[in-house]
Amino acid sequence: MSLLEITSKKINSLDELSINQAKQRLDRLIKPAGSLGKMEDICMQLAGIYGSKHFDTSKKVIIAFAGDHGVYEEGVAPDPQNITYLQFPNFANGLCGVGTISKFVGCDVVAVDVGINCDHKLEGIIDRKIRKGTSNMAKESAMSRKEAIKSLEIGIEMAEKCINEGYKIVGIGEMGICNTTPSSAIISVIGDCDPLDVTGIGAGLKKERIEHKANTIRKAIELNKPNPEDAVDILAKVGGFEIGAMAGVIIGCSANNIPVVVDGFISYAAALLAHKINPRTRDYMIASHSSAEPGTEKALEIIKLSPVLNMDMRLGEGSGAALAFNIIEASNYTYTNMATFDEVDMGR
Amino acid sequence: MSLLEITSKKINSLDELSINQAKQRLDRLIKPAGSLGKMEDICMQLAGIYGSKHFDTSKKVIIAFAGDHGVYEEGVAPDPQNITYLQFPNFANGLCGVGTISKFVGCDVVAVDVGINCDHKLEGIIDRKIRKGTSNMAKESAMSRKEAIKSLEIGIEMAEKCINEGYKIVGIGEMGICNTTPSSAIISVIGDCDPLDVTGIGAGLKKERIEHKANTIRKAIELNKPNPEDAVDILAKVGGFEIGAMAGVIIGCSANNIPVVVDGFISYAAALLAHKINPRTRDYMIASHSSAEPGTEKALEIIKLSPVLNMDMRLGEGSGAALAFNIIEASNYTYTNMATFDEVDMGR
Repeated sequence: MSLLEITSKKINSLDELSINQAKQRLDRLIKPAGSLGKMEDICMQLAGIYGSKHFDTSKKVIIAFAGDHGVYEEGVAPDPQNITYLQFPNFANGLCGVGTISKFVGCDVVAVDVGINCDHKLEGIIDRKIRKGTSNMAKESAMSRKEAIKSLEIGIEMAEKCINEGYKIVGIGEMGICNTTPSSAIISVIGDCDPLDVTGIGAGLKKERIEHKANTIRKAIELNKPNPEDAVDILAKVGGFEIGAMAGVIIGCSANNIPVVVDGFISYAAALLAHKINPRTRDYMIASHSSAEPGTEKALEIIKLSPVLNMDMRLGEGSGAALAFNIIEASNYTYTNMATFDEVDMGR
Repeated sequence: MSLLEITSKKINSLDELSINQAKQRLDRLIKPAGSLGKMEDICMQLAGIYGSKHFDTSKKVIIAFAGDHGVYEEGVAPDPQNITYLQFPNFANGLCGVGTISKFVGCDVVAVDVGINCDHKLEGIIDRKIRKGTSNMAKESAMSRKEAIKSLEIGIEMAEKCINEGYKIVGIGEMGICNTTPSSAIISVIGDCDPLDVTGIGAGLKKERIEHKANTIRKAIELNKPNPEDAVDILAKVGGFEIGAMAGVIIGCSANNIPVVVDGFISYAAALLAHKINPRTRDYMIASHSSAEPGTEKALEIIKLSPVLNMDMRLGEGSGAALAFNIIEASNYTYTNMATFDEVDMGR
C-alpha cells in the first residue's frame, strides 16, 4: 500500500465520549445552553479529535506550499509568474500577510516549495520540488497520476513532521500565481457546476477577463475529462502541486488526530480533494473564513463547513487560517476558564 | 442644551486625509490591493476616527449595563428575573462569558447597574440605577421621556469616564433578563416590520412561545405608538435602561473620536437608536458578530454594518465585542508590520 492509502486508512471517527464530556462541561458553564455557538462547536470538535475533554492548542503552525502553474500562459492571472518565487521567502521571514498575522497570533510558518518555476534555492524554504510548475491543463494533463500522489504524500509527510515536532494544531496555506484557476476547476468538477459559477477575480483579475478564465477551465475539463469520483485523477488533470500537498496535510492531520484549519479558496479545493479521498477528514477540519471568491459557498456546502470569520479576504497564503487560530484559542480558553453553575450561586 | 444634545452635536465626519493615508499604506503592502478585505476596512476606519494614520488600540474596555424589564411579567423569557442580579457581578469578577473572553483578549470590563430589580449593592458594579426595572410596555410606556434621556446620558458619561482613563477602543455589552423583547420591539419600529419577523428565542425560549413574545411586542407598539422618527420616544415607550445606556456609549465615543465595537442583538437595537439620533455614529461603529437571533440582518442592513465574526453566538454580555477586539488588533498589527513593496524586492 502507498503512504497515501495507509494514512487514509488510519483516519478514525471522532471520540464520542470526549465530545459528550465536553458538552457536559459546556452545558454547566454559567450561560444559556449553546449560547456561545461555534465557540462551543469548536471545543466539542477538538475534544473529539484529541480524544480528551481538555486539550492544548497553543503550539500551532501554518504549513504553506508553493507551486507554479502551466495554465498561467493562458493569461488567467494579472501578476507575473515570478511573484511566486519572489513572495514565497516572505512566508518564512514573516514579512508577508500570513507571516505578519502569524507573529500576532503566535504561530510558526513552515514553507515548502513543491513546484515553483525557478532553479535557485529559496531562503528559509524547504525544498520538496516535484517539478518547476505543472503543465498547461488547457492543453494536457496538469501532472501525471504519480506526481499527483507524490504531492499528496509530501503533504502527509510535512504534516507528520510538524506533528512529531509537537504542533497540536495545523493551518494550511499556499502561494502560486494563478492557482485560483485550478481551484475553480476542482470545485467545478466535484461540485458538478459550470466553471463560470465558481470563477472570480482571484488576486485581482480584471472583471472582463473572468469569462476567459472560466472558458479556459471549461476547455481543460473538456479536454482532460477528470473522473469526478476520483480525487487523484482530478488533482492530476486540473489541479496543482501545492493544492495536492494541502490536501495531503488534511489527510495527515486527520490520521494523527490533529485539527486542521482550512484557509480560503485554494484550500477549499484541497479540502474537497481530501474529503473525496476520505470523507472522515471533514471532522478534522475547521473553516477559518469565507473567501470573497465565488465558488466559496458551493465548496463549503459540499463539505458542510461554516467559517468563523467573515472578512471578505482573498489573499490566501494561510492568512485567514492564522487569524482563526485566535478564535480557536479564545474558545478553548473560555471553555476551560468560565465558571460553572456548581461554582457560583446562580439560584439553581 | 442637554448633555445628549451637546454630545450629539460634537460628532464629526471621519478624517478623510487620514483615511487616504491609511489606504496609501495598505496599497503598498506586499499583497494584491484590497485582498485583506475587512482587515483593511477596519484600519481605514480607525485612521479616520483617530485622525491619524497610525494608532494604538491596545487599551480597550467593554462597558456593560444591566437593567430589568417590566414586560418580564408577560412570560417572554425562560429564566427567572433574578438571573440579572445574580449574573451581573460575574461581569466584574471575570467569571462569566464576557469576563473570560475579556481576560483572553486583554481588555477590562466596566459594569454599570442602570436598572436592576434589586435593593442591595452589587460587588464590583457601578451604581447608576435609574429605577428597579422598566414598566411593563405591554401595559404602559416602559419609561418616561426624562428617564430615557437619563439612560442615554449615563451611557455618554460612562464612555467619557473610560476615555478620560485612557481607553482607546470601547465595546458595549449588557445583561437583562428578557431584553431581546424590547430589542425586537425597537428593531420592529425602526425597521418598519412585523415583530414576528425580528423575534427569536433569545436566551432559550421554547419555539412555541415565540409567537406569544411577538404578540406581546405588537401589543406594546400598538398601545404606546412610538414615533419611528424619534429615537428617544421609541426608547421611552418600548426600550430598556441598558439599551439606552448602550446607545449613549455609542454617541459618547463618536463625539470623542473613539471607535465603538457593537456586540450582538441587544446592541444592534442600541446602535439603531444611536444612528437615529445622529447617523454619523455609524462611522464610529465596528460590528463584531452576527447574532443568531432573527432580526439581525434587518438591523445590520439599516445601519449598513457587516460583522467580522460569524459565530452563531446569542449570549450577549459583550462577549462578541470582546472576541472581535482580537481581530481589530490583528488588523492594526498587520497594517503596521507587514512589509511594503518599497522594502522588499518584488520585481516592481
